[in-house]
Amino acid sequence: MRTSRFHLGTIKEAPADAELASHRLMIRAGYVRRLAAGIYTWLPLGLRALRKVEAVVREEMNRAGAIELSMPAVQPAELWQESGRWQTYGPELLRFKDRHERDFVIQPTSEEVITDLARAELKSYRQLPLHFYQIQTKFRDERRPRFGVMRGREFVMKDGYSFHVDHADLEREYRNMYDTYTRIFTRLGLRFRAVAADTGAIGGTGSHEFQVLADSGEDAIAYSTGSDYAANVDLAEALAPAEARRAPAEQMRKVPTPGKTRCEEVAELLKLPLARTLKAIAVMQDEQFVLLLLRGDHELNELKAQKAIGAFRFALEAEMRRALGCPPGYIGPVGVAARVRVVADRSVAAMSDFVCGANEEGFHLAGINWRRDLPEPSLVADLRNVMEGDPSPDGQGSLRIQRGIEVGHIFQLRTKYSGALGAAVLDAKGETRPLEMGCYGIGVTRVVAAAIEQHHDERGIALPAALAPFALCLVPIAYRKNEKVRAAADRLYAELLDAGIEVLMDDRDERAGVLFADMDLIGIPHRIVLAERGLAAGEAEYKARRDAQARNVPLAGMVAFLKERLAEA
Amino acid sequence: MRTSRFHLGTIKEAPADAELASHRLMIRAGYVRRLAAGIYTWLPLGLRALRKVEAVVREEMNRAGAIELSMPAVQPAELWQESGRWQTYGPELLRFKDRHERDFVIQPTSEEVITDLARAELKSYRQLPLHFYQIQTKFRDERRPRFGVMRGREFVMKDGYSFHVDHADLEREYRNMYDTYTRIFTRLGLRFRAVAADTGAIGGTGSHEFQVLADSGEDAIAYSTGSDYAANVDLAEALAPAEARRAPAEQMRKVPTPGKTRCEEVAELLKLPLARTLKAIAVMQDEQFVLLLLRGDHELNELKAQKAIGAFRFALEAEMRRALGCPPGYIGPVGVAARVRVVADRSVAAMSDFVCGANEEGFHLAGINWRRDLPEPSLVADLRNVMEGDPSPDGQGSLRIQRGIEVGHIFQLRTKYSGALGAAVLDAKGETRPLEMGCYGIGVTRVVAAAIEQHHDERGIALPAALAPFALCLVPIAYRKNEKVRAAADRLYAELLDAGIEVLMDDRDERAGVLFADMDLIGIPHRIVLAERGLAAGEAEYKARRDAQARNVPLAGMVAFLKERLAEA
Repeated sequence: MRTSRFHLGTIKEAPADAELASHRLMIRAGYVRRLAAGIYTWLPLGLRALRKVEAVVREEMNRAGAIELSMPAVQPAELWQESGRWQTYGPELLRFKDRHERDFVIQPTSEEVITDLARAELKSYRQLPLHFYQIQTKFRDERRPRFGVMRGREFVMKDGYSFHVDHADLEREYRNMYDTYTRIFTRLGLRFRAVAADTGAIGGTGSHEFQVLADSGEDAIAYSTGSDYAANVDLAEALAPAEARRAPAEQMRKVPTPGKTRCEEVAELLKLPLARTLKAIAVMQDEQFVLLLLRGDHELNELKAQKAIGAFRFALEAEMRRALGCPPGYIGPVGVAARVRVVADRSVAAMSDFVCGANEEGFHLAGINWRRDLPEPSLVADLRNVMEGDPSPDGQGSLRIQRGIEVGHIFQLRTKYSGALGAAVLDAKGETRPLEMGCYGIGVTRVVAAAIEQHHDERGIALPAALAPFALCLVPIAYRKNEKVRAAADRLYAELLDAGIEVLMDDRDERAGVLFADMDLIGIPHRIVLAERGLAAGEAEYKARRDAQARNVPLAGMVAFLKERLAEA
Repeated sequence: MRTSRFHLGTIKEAPADAELASHRLMIRAGYVRRLAAGIYTWLPLGLRALRKVEAVVREEMNRAGAIELSMPAVQPAELWQESGRWQTYGPELLRFKDRHERDFVIQPTSEEVITDLARAELKSYRQLPLHFYQIQTKFRDERRPRFGVMRGREFVMKDGYSFHVDHADLEREYRNMYDTYTRIFTRLGLRFRAVAADTGAIGGTGSHEFQVLADSGEDAIAYSTGSDYAANVDLAEALAPAEARRAPAEQMRKVPTPGKTRCEEVAELLKLPLARTLKAIAVMQDEQFVLLLLRGDHELNELKAQKAIGAFRFALEAEMRRALGCPPGYIGPVGVAARVRVVADRSVAAMSDFVCGANEEGFHLAGINWRRDLPEPSLVADLRNVMEGDPSPDGQGSLRIQRGIEVGHIFQLRTKYSGALGAAVLDAKGETRPLEMGCYGIGVTRVVAAAIEQHHDERGIALPAALAPFALCLVPIAYRKNEKVRAAADRLYAELLDAGIEVLMDDRDERAGVLFADMDLIGIPHRIVLAERGLAAGEAEYKARRDAQARNVPLAGMVAFLKERLAEA
């Protein structure tokens, strides 16, 4: 392709609200353009990268035995009512009426339609296992779309659904998909982790996320230094401290802490380690007031707390004053047993001689001990996020935390949808069994953004070869003005095309600096520069996108040289 | 692919409402399944055919210099308001509100979005010409979706939009696309015609339709036996008769025609040629009563009549009685000049000694002549459909009529959208010029249905090789029971895959008759049957889908033999 016949939409300015590097760079490099909040046009350059991801996904899904089909974007409400998601799915599910006032949705995902298809098409275990997938535009009406295509409303997703006569076969396919996803993200040149995950809104049991590692990621991942253990922090268990609770060594005493409402401030004032302070978090369950207790250096994990005690909301200041007679910052568990339920994190249950709010403005209590100064908590549970250095839940090594971008997710749905929609087959004994189902998603558009998040520098995008829009760029200097350069460039360009190399020749009438900057910005892995002086010596200049220095390469044998470089990438 | 690992959704019964062969066969062969009115899931087999059409379209569009991008399915209302189509597009435009109550549409086509992109991206004539296209899901909320995917609501369309600094360059690209579409439909093995067309709702000037010829087509095409002339009948001009009006030879007389309300009945009763009778059609323009006159053997073309006199509706019986004092079937133009406007087709103006209703129930007038018996019509215009045998409007040869299915449409939009949205560039003189635009569509899903409409027989689908889901099917007889057959089939299957042949091996445990019927139904162009007896003789049976007879072919050299057959198709 010649840039003069292409559309290279590189621009200087990124939108002011673009927080992520991938968002800024995808706009600046002309990969995408915003049409509306969370809705983007993929320009020719970006679409080439997107299609490369699609191609790798398709190839590996086919290799794994899945079969491609295509379900409609517009789906009738009836099926969503049948599964119950018409009611339970939030406003992210885009609902509308057609001209005959019938209810429809634009699909965010296709469990209902595929299960409806399965109940009509599948009658016998002999038709199983089957795995259908599609690569297609989806819509999720996010309340606050952001980060460009990373969390857009319209996006391309690969969604696959497998059907099995029993759980054992579902587990076999689940492992097959685990391996397939691992191959896909490896081929795409991404650094990623497969982590155990919570199943969220999709439901079912058994689930892994595939997370591309990047500091800007929205998810936190805990992994072990001593084993393969890796999990979303929401799922990573914080074990009880190995050491048992020590016997009390101090007397409880009230200490003035005026203006010191945060654990860090209290610890500093009292010259104590933060881990000796206790953080009390007031929540409401229906009309019951509950204190959640965490160590001062720990953070609440709301999902874990919900699992431990059920749904709750944070208490208002007025509710704290009513229950404890004290404003936030000074609340604590001592002397409240009669009217307040106290739920403690495992680490808290192991504390002794600790500090917490005195339920009196401007005061804390120090030297507190369980049993002596207050009753044991009514419930001890895992309420906190794991931290760097925590022991790994599998008992091997300790945990590290990384941030990640979720690009894939595999689920064992079991019979959640087949049960609701009545999709069953006859098994080998002639008995009716609900279909066991798995579902497997890859955020195709998000993969492009995540790859850029992981692969860029101050000059622009530096994509792995597997998803770069072109393999090579050819930059002739003064192509429009210098006949020798033009002739040599046209000749080399033709040779490269003949050799099947995806080359972009920048034949625009621009200064060399502009051409170099644009080619660096758009992220082509390899570059050849042709200039008059080098030509005279029979040479061109080669540089990989990630190289610091260019080097001269003889024009004779250039195609062979480049084929080697491309094979390395 | 093995059928045992695929999903072959062949079924016996087609839906009762399936009027077209393509609709019946696409359901029966497991190409598609209906999800809702006009909304279909593409099953694996159908999707393979659809993807082949997409691939040919993409290849030829790229070859022609167009560049692929991808615009969103969900588009903000603002742009449609800016172009005016928010108001003018009927309920086919699916409109909805997002969670923030903002108006959106699901795109039926993307003129607005691409023009919005162009006004942001294009500043100078030096960026032109440019042609962007996409292949993508569209939605048109048809009032009465029918004929399966032929007139569905959700469908895949290739839509392209070109931008030019002047009309001459647009005309160059228009011819380029005319040639490209001709190549595409030729490569797909379709019998088609490019015909001059009305521009319809898209607007602009200059337009051709690409019509796949099929008796079941919704459109009628007129073409000349003596030239390249071809046009949608709505656009094909019916010339005035070459012969001038003859002098009157008869006296006007009233004849009793009780119960004879149709021209055919009157002609038969009076033993006259149908072409001597006159058909009067009563219409209303606002409150004015108008008679449209056609020869008894001609048909009204409403589009032409509208062009001649402006918008109208057909008159009600009460309105006829009020204006003419007579019920339908006996109305006519004699004696009504004072209160009724009379508009005549060109052929009518040339008639003499003709017959028409007497404006008296049970009577007609015969021997009528213009001027003598009634004044000349107030307007003479082309009001009728052309007929077989009419002279071609280009003066060369005479017309034939064929029915067609519109699969492509190219338009010169000129500045309709660029003007409305203010998309302009600086020309070579530094002056601002609105972009000249063309737009070019192919109904990708409809191509599959149209191809089947043209290529099927009583046994099922018989697609051209270019869009068949597989090139070849291999049918081993008793694969599950006969070890020799299984071994030979597995060996040949592996050889065919190695040779890069797209083969479907039917390894299901079914009777030979079932396998044959299914393979014929799904429309694979070539078939090999392996059975024990043939194997013993070192032979297999080959048959092309359209052959009447199978023939034996030596197994040695089978791959080479098949490669030759496949190359022929």
